[in-house]
Amino acid sequence: MISELDDLMAKSGYDALLVLGESTYSSAELYYLVRAPVPRGGVYLKKRGSEPQLVVSTLDAACARKGIVSDVKTYSDYGLGQLQRRLGPGRAYAELIATVLKRAGVSGQVAVAGKTDALTTAYLVDFLRRRGFRVAGMPRPSFLDLCRRKKERWEAEAVVEAGRRTVKVVEKLEKILEYSDVRQGRITYEGKPLTTGFLRRSVMAWCGEEGLTLPEGLILASGPDSSDPHASGLENKPLNPGEPLLFDIFPASEKGYRYDFTRTYCVGRPKPLLRRMFQDVLEAQTRAFEVVGEGVRCGAVFAEACRVLQRRGWPTLLEARSVDRGFIHGLGHGVGLTIGEEPYLSRDSQTVISTGDVFTVEPGLYEPGFGGVRIEDVAMIEGGKTVKAVEHRYVLEF
Amino acid sequence: MISELDDLMAKSGYDALLVLGESTYSSAELYYLVRAPVPRGGVYLKKRGSEPQLVVSTLDAACARKGIVSDVKTYSDYGLGQLQRRLGPGRAYAELIATVLKRAGVSGQVAVAGKTDALTTAYLVDFLRRRGFRVAGMPRPSFLDLCRRKKERWEAEAVVEAGRRTVKVVEKLEKILEYSDVRQGRITYEGKPLTTGFLRRSVMAWCGEEGLTLPEGLILASGPDSSDPHASGLENKPLNPGEPLLFDIFPASEKGYRYDFTRTYCVGRPKPLLRRMFQDVLEAQTRAFEVVGEGVRCGAVFAEACRVLQRRGWPTLLEARSVDRGFIHGLGHGVGLTIGEEPYLSRDSQTVISTGDVFTVEPGLYEPGFGGVRIEDVAMIEGGKTVKAVEHRYVLEF
Repeated sequence: MISELDDLMAKSGYDALLVLGESTYSSAELYYLVRAPVPRGGVYLKKRGSEPQLVVSTLDAACARKGIVSDVKTYSDYGLGQLQRRLGPGRAYAELIATVLKRAGVSGQVAVAGKTDALTTAYLVDFLRRRGFRVAGMPRPSFLDLCRRKKERWEAEAVVEAGRRTVKVVEKLEKILEYSDVRQGRITYEGKPLTTGFLRRSVMAWCGEEGLTLPEGLILASGPDSSDPHASGLENKPLNPGEPLLFDIFPASEKGYRYDFTRTYCVGRPKPLLRRMFQDVLEAQTRAFEVVGEGVRCGAVFAEACRVLQRRGWPTLLEARSVDRGFIHGLGHGVGLTIGEEPYLSRDSQTVISTGDVFTVEPGLYEPGFGGVRIEDVAMIEGGKTVKAVEHRYVLEF
Repeated sequence: MISELDDLMAKSGYDALLVLGESTYSSAELYYLVRAPVPRGGVYLKKRGSEPQLVVSTLDAACARKGIVSDVKTYSDYGLGQLQRRLGPGRAYAELIATVLKRAGVSGQVAVAGKTDALTTAYLVDFLRRRGFRVAGMPRPSFLDLCRRKKERWEAEAVVEAGRRTVKVVEKLEKILEYSDVRQGRITYEGKPLTTGFLRRSVMAWCGEEGLTLPEGLILASGPDSSDPHASGLENKPLNPGEPLLFDIFPASEKGYRYDFTRTYCVGRPKPLLRRMFQDVLEAQTRAFEVVGEGVRCGAVFAEACRVLQRRGWPTLLEARSVDRGFIHGLGHGVGLTIGEEPYLSRDSQTVISTGDVFTVEPGLYEPGFGGVRIEDVAMIEGGKTVKAVEHRYVLEF
């Protein structure tokens, strides 16, 4: 939570936090601290214990002022134009940041954060150090990762809101599967062969109608393709009866908050192996939801899901360093402004789940050459209780 | 062009290029060099004069192997799991990268590039330096920015392809405006008040149908809101007759290539000021397309567009450091895997336009309290000739 920021900075030994980004879309850290879309990004500076300031392009000042930083200045206020003419764009940008730090009287240890171009960051850090600033990096999870991990109530609600709209899209996809026909070993919808390409375009259009964007695409993989857990399903292939259709969707609402949801479907009678995989994965997810909760170690939840699958005869990452079939990935990850954040439900994680955590629970089983099954919902810890962000049925066969 | 990479590295004094990214969606540099979607990103290393290698998660190895890097290894090959158990995730990642560099025999100057978390990057750079690697940053435009600037024919075609689909969406929006009615000072479509919210959702859905995503949203701003060039138009407002509707759309195709397009419309008879602004902006864009071409300095094209607008009585950034009405932004920017890249058509740019450049030409006029007009198309320099990527009509009034 943003209210913890000063404490987290203190614990990590930082006196000032500088957050950069070419836009609030590309830098979740910048958006988190600014809370308004700023198309060209900006320079955020917060001294520990003080109110933050933000420096943006004149063009973006009106946008930026809609956010939570009240002290918004422009690059012109710092003479960026003249600097650029004298020094070129790259050096001018570094000079601007040095001036922002200097005018704010920054003296102690400085964290430079946000999603930025690494070549520029390395140049900037050296530049600031030559100017006498004490810039220090930090491996992940950084104090800002920890700050973003614990969601406020309204943030969790923004995830739920994105989830409700996601499920509307899911229901439309399920309706198409329901109205599809299996004849002579082929699946048709409204008289035409049903393909992953058609479903993909349809899902993209429904997301648009719901005001959802797909910053990292979506996964719609059928048959053997689904045994690669990250198959993008960009291929346009006809669906085959009895085979898995793995559908994983991770959209963003206009507030920037994400949802992450997976179901695995089958049109026609599922092959026995597929039916067994589905039951095993669902049992693993059910068990994970039973044990997950405040005070529980992430690694323990992962282990519990693995044990269910082990008992059913599947290889998992609990007993092996690397497996090429069975349960071959982690159990979940945090969901917020990104879908790659704390907490991670992986084998070795010592992280203890606590109130404010919002994360996926997504066991899967993969059989190369045959296909994969994954089931994913979002869990939230609220006032010590675990709740499913949005409920949706578990159905394999259509 | 990627074929220039060795030369560009040599000119900037680099012996090795390390490119990072949490995913190929968030790191355009990584995607550019890998040419395949890798959901969890990876570590790309190229020694000057040698073939590159790529290290990714086992889960992503199949995806990564669909790209242009033939030497794909996995984190397991470097023992990341054991490192993580021993050192924690952040330090383990730095150790992994040090091992990748060491095994490849990297000795000279190293560039760390790609879109990454700045705190992690600063930590990594210090870590690698302690291990004896000579890591050096570079201000923008970096050699990798220059490499990405010059498009190959197939890249320019990917922009055109995204543009053709964008224009299909634009035509659907124009059809709605055409079929709208003005009655008693209100605009209705199919009997309901026409709002920016309805148009926004419709555009998002049509983009989905065309297989286009909107990584940074879109701009649909009406009336006085359009005088802020980056108003996101997230507000849901009814359109008013005679007022501007500014529509700026910058989608990505599944290949990752972008398009960027703006028109300004009006339902009902335009107010005289709006009509004048539209004519002046169109004249400025026409003039810019006349003068832009191989061998021309970017700053000269900007100046030419400004002079047209100056003659019509508008303030521009040619004669003033900062203006709050008139032509208040740059004339254009490169378009490729991003919509913020070289070349930039700004006042002080000494960059000379050359074959392979793909960029926007987007003059605009803004009158606070009244509204804004912007017209944007994409120019490409092919074999010394300037061509418009995709043609589309210029119409204000519906």
